[in-house]
Amino acid sequence: MVSKPAPDATRRSERSRRAIYAAALALVGEVGYPKTTVEAIAARAGVGKQTIYRWWSSKADVLLEAFLDLAGQSAQAAGQAADAVPDTGDLAADLKAVLRATVDELFDPRFEVPARALAAEGVVNEQLGREVVAKLLEPQLQLYVARLRSAQDAGAVRADVDPRIALELFVSPLAQRWLQRSGPVSYAYTDTLVEYALHGIAPR
Amino acid sequence: MVSKPAPDATRRSERSRRAIYAAALALVGEVGYPKTTVEAIAARAGVGKQTIYRWWSSKADVLLEAFLDLAGQSAQAAGQAADAVPDTGDLAADLKAVLRATVDELFDPRFEVPARALAAEGVVNEQLGREVVAKLLEPQLQLYVARLRSAQDAGAVRADVDPRIALELFVSPLAQRWLQRSGPVSYAYTDTLVEYALHGIAPR
Repeated sequence: MVSKPAPDATRRSERSRRAIYAAALALVGEVGYPKTTVEAIAARAGVGKQTIYRWWSSKADVLLEAFLDLAGQSAQAAGQAADAVPDTGDLAADLKAVLRATVDELFDPRFEVPARALAAEGVVNEQLGREVVAKLLEPQLQLYVARLRSAQDAGAVRADVDPRIALELFVSPLAQRWLQRSGPVSYAYTDTLVEYALHGIAPR
Repeated sequence: MVSKPAPDATRRSERSRRAIYAAALALVGEVGYPKTTVEAIAARAGVGKQTIYRWWSSKADVLLEAFLDLAGQSAQAAGQAADAVPDTGDLAADLKAVLRATVDELFDPRFEVPARALAAEGVVNEQLGREVVAKLLEPQLQLYVARLRSAQDAGAVRADVDPRIALELFVSPLAQRWLQRSGPVSYAYTDTLVEYALHGIAPR
């Protein structure tokens, strides 16, 4: 794709924006959320504090946007659209593919270290936690909701199932093993979650 | 049950122990794990620092034991054994009952505030996180493993299912909604998790 060359000012802004994202993610991973300041982000990014406040109103805003950007990059790197769960018509295969890509992302140190710092703060800081959920987590979960609805239309998921709850059967176990380090994570593990969620653990 | 009266020294020790647990739980909820110190726990409990070091080697040890004690009390208050998932022969009913009791416990402020502080620290402090899992979380999860094994013997769960993974289909969604505040929690919600986990979301 050929894009229109950016004017100098836009190019400079884009460079500053990327430097600010990188600085914010690095700092929160190094010193934790409470000790990350807009001043320190500005200093590390080599911009003035006012440049940050021109675009964002708080460190929470900068960080949440930096994560959105990072998640978009990870999806691209995995060859996936960041805004949809694939729909090949094979629900099990589609869910397994997305969960495998999620495993890769969660354990990529560029993502894992800052994401843990943000998640830890969200557990005890209710306001930040709710922002993380509304801006980062829930939009991702809604992609599974859309895929499960399409599966309901196709008869692959029962019509009486609530997709917003159903997705948690395979998403939440991975989230917990990652967040709390409560068990090993592998593709075989996430594949198994999808199988159990679709077909249940009781005899058929 | 009539218990033998404790000698004075034992009674004093037991009183100190309870005061230390209460102080440790209150402090970690108020100031977070990093700022909780053995000195502050001792001061609040009205005992000398050496009393604490006589029984425990670190603040992590005190806190983990205080939580074990609290969890045991909660189970008793809910009229349940702390060391087993009930086995009435009706797997769905037994799982629903235990999850409902867990909902009550998670949202009881006496438990919730210190538990959030410990969970948040465990996310970023790997050593503490692994201790929390080994001493608090995994022993609880093993109670579900035992119940699912008994269900396998009774033919209510397929023999090829791994109970340690299967339990996560209903435990982890509740854990995530509690930890990350990613959705409302109710008995209807946990009942639904059990139904989906047992019977799957695909048509039967």
